[in-house]
Amino acid sequence: MTQTDSSLHLCSPRGFRAAGVACGIKESGKPDLALLVCDRPASAAVAFTRSRVVSPAVTVGREHLHQSTHRLRAVVVNSGNANACTGEPGKRDAIEMATRVGQHVGVSRDYVLPSSTGIIGHALPMQNVRDGIDAASQQLGSSREHADAFANAILTTDLVTKQAATTVRIGGETITIAGVCKGSGMIGPMLEVEGAHVPAEATMLAYLTTDAAVSPEVLRDFHAPAVMRTFDRVTVDNHCSTNDTVALLASGHGPTVAAGDAAFQAALTDVCDALAYQIAADGEGATKVLVCRVAGARTEAEAASLARSIADSPLVKAAMHGNDPNWGRIVCIAGMAAARDDLAFDADRCELRLAGTIVFRDGLPVDFDAAALSKAMRTDRVELDLTCREGDAAAHVYGCDLSREYVAINADYHT
Amino acid sequence: MTQTDSSLHLCSPRGFRAAGVACGIKESGKPDLALLVCDRPASAAVAFTRSRVVSPAVTVGREHLHQSTHRLRAVVVNSGNANACTGEPGKRDAIEMATRVGQHVGVSRDYVLPSSTGIIGHALPMQNVRDGIDAASQQLGSSREHADAFANAILTTDLVTKQAATTVRIGGETITIAGVCKGSGMIGPMLEVEGAHVPAEATMLAYLTTDAAVSPEVLRDFHAPAVMRTFDRVTVDNHCSTNDTVALLASGHGPTVAAGDAAFQAALTDVCDALAYQIAADGEGATKVLVCRVAGARTEAEAASLARSIADSPLVKAAMHGNDPNWGRIVCIAGMAAARDDLAFDADRCELRLAGTIVFRDGLPVDFDAAALSKAMRTDRVELDLTCREGDAAAHVYGCDLSREYVAINADYHT
Repeated sequence: MTQTDSSLHLCSPRGFRAAGVACGIKESGKPDLALLVCDRPASAAVAFTRSRVVSPAVTVGREHLHQSTHRLRAVVVNSGNANACTGEPGKRDAIEMATRVGQHVGVSRDYVLPSSTGIIGHALPMQNVRDGIDAASQQLGSSREHADAFANAILTTDLVTKQAATTVRIGGETITIAGVCKGSGMIGPMLEVEGAHVPAEATMLAYLTTDAAVSPEVLRDFHAPAVMRTFDRVTVDNHCSTNDTVALLASGHGPTVAAGDAAFQAALTDVCDALAYQIAADGEGATKVLVCRVAGARTEAEAASLARSIADSPLVKAAMHGNDPNWGRIVCIAGMAAARDDLAFDADRCELRLAGTIVFRDGLPVDFDAAALSKAMRTDRVELDLTCREGDAAAHVYGCDLSREYVAINADYHT
Repeated sequence: MTQTDSSLHLCSPRGFRAAGVACGIKESGKPDLALLVCDRPASAAVAFTRSRVVSPAVTVGREHLHQSTHRLRAVVVNSGNANACTGEPGKRDAIEMATRVGQHVGVSRDYVLPSSTGIIGHALPMQNVRDGIDAASQQLGSSREHADAFANAILTTDLVTKQAATTVRIGGETITIAGVCKGSGMIGPMLEVEGAHVPAEATMLAYLTTDAAVSPEVLRDFHAPAVMRTFDRVTVDNHCSTNDTVALLASGHGPTVAAGDAAFQAALTDVCDALAYQIAADGEGATKVLVCRVAGARTEAEAASLARSIADSPLVKAAMHGNDPNWGRIVCIAGMAAARDDLAFDADRCELRLAGTIVFRDGLPVDFDAAALSKAMRTDRVELDLTCREGDAAAHVYGCDLSREYVAINADYHT
């Protein structure tokens, strides 16, 4: 988890206004329509789900970015309904959402990105959506309250809003980077950044703003690695969604950022990492984050793949829920993943630490105080560190424990 | 699920004797050592886990089969301890198990297959094991009670024993095929049959006997496809084990079976299928079997892969537990699997039935009575049928629902 500046929010970067309203898509009456508007055409970089089954919102979003040459004036998000598996009528609805926002903003729909999250296979209640767009358009503003309203209106089974922001000094001037996201279940993103595969799986939605001045092409090159190392490395249930979207908008009100600027890249990645951590922490039914780190791997991709397999193991997740130092399951799933994905891993040449305690080394169990370790695991963040001797690459994945509550939430979500 | 003959058992094929005893490996005092002996060197075909982390029992088993040119006189199984991640001491223990059985039987250890299942990372209590082997050797017999004792002594978290058997007529004579297995959690076999990958993941242990007269080479060619279509297609938690083993022993007391005999192949596959179904039905915490079938696929492997992804989705499993016809998750996970594994699947060209009711077709939801369908799902076997229009291949995978009880079992297994 990264330190970010909690005094900042989604509308801190210059040029952005936001709103969130309740328009009746959710039966609960909770907020379910969010709107983000930039006062000029922002450079935009967006990662979408790689799934073969995608929401019309994703299809339309891709088309709009192509048409606008990666410029956006607005993002509109509804929660409570994924508008997925809804065919041509669903596509018309996604287009109408963007069109209506464009009319309020005074641009063609190509400059509007639509997003949806919620139940799959149901038609959007379009009259509610229209009313929501109209209401949100009247409530746009740049205060923390407006940012909070946006962050709240995109939630589904999430228990809390997720926000992070930071600043970075470039050439004596300050650039702000901020973001909000949602995601709690169906999290295991498998994202695609402009044609480059970024293996990950939720409906995970994330919206990032910055006032940096940067072309769409350069922005994409900052966006891709940040997404790959963060949103692509969080999992709740290894389930990518039809709607996963991570969008970054740069208003250009601030200083120009040169391609490859390390400080900007680090700051952006920090914000994304903080948001990804919050998704794992708010995973459905989760009581703790599992920070699964693999070091000494042959490549970063192999480290991430091993870490992901550990974070996705229901047996490991249940053991962590029970504060049970049952490390054998961790070695076991690593062995399975290594065989399945042809990763360099040898149980006879590795070390496993659980919550800081060495439990296994070079093929043999290490004596430890199980009661003390179990006690150390009774916290909201448990670290699982697997160190190989195959190379010098490392990666971490954020996961969470598996609880009875996860089952309860997902056994009764629909009917 | 296949019809098998419940009047038969593991020792019905001529030449086999079995025993099961309690020797104190399990703290519960339940039976934990099983022994199967053939009165002559049986032809043997064995599939082991493909994991990169394997129990010394697997390592030793592979070596013995090589040394004996695939002939076995005995199988010895302990439950309660997987003897995995135990290094060289663990290997010595596996060898000692086989050696001691060999002394009782009067053969070298190369003719004995050792198996273990249970907790990972703990040394076997060898004095208990020795006593158990000695006791079991004195209790061998060919009655149903002996077969039941074997089936019972290999269990871990299983609630019931798993047995199946059938007969097949070859050239006017009767051949009997029988089997027992165990497996409840850590089930998602990924088996390797004599060098040929059979993608699958538990500790799943299965032992099959037949009195057919068949060479080890021919037996292997019957064994591999039977295993691939059955044990490789059952999943509880998508977790292959360090110890998975499926062994088939042919005593040769009956008639000779020619290579490729379709009746023998079908009968063997039927017994394996019945056992695989029983594993899913007794999955940890399971209340129902999910029969996930994919038809109209490009290849059988793609059909199995899609079916497996559906059976492994925690969101689908939880929905099925709640009798919730939330079919969107099924289409969603198929879309993810198709992208991840490059499978031919198009939501606009498929039909999905849930418990016999069409819920989705050609990209659009189909109206159905959700309450009636939910009621129809309140049973111990729910069928999920996805029919594509990509080809004419089909496959089914047996899975189970995800319950709070699964979490309870696995949060508290160890400490």
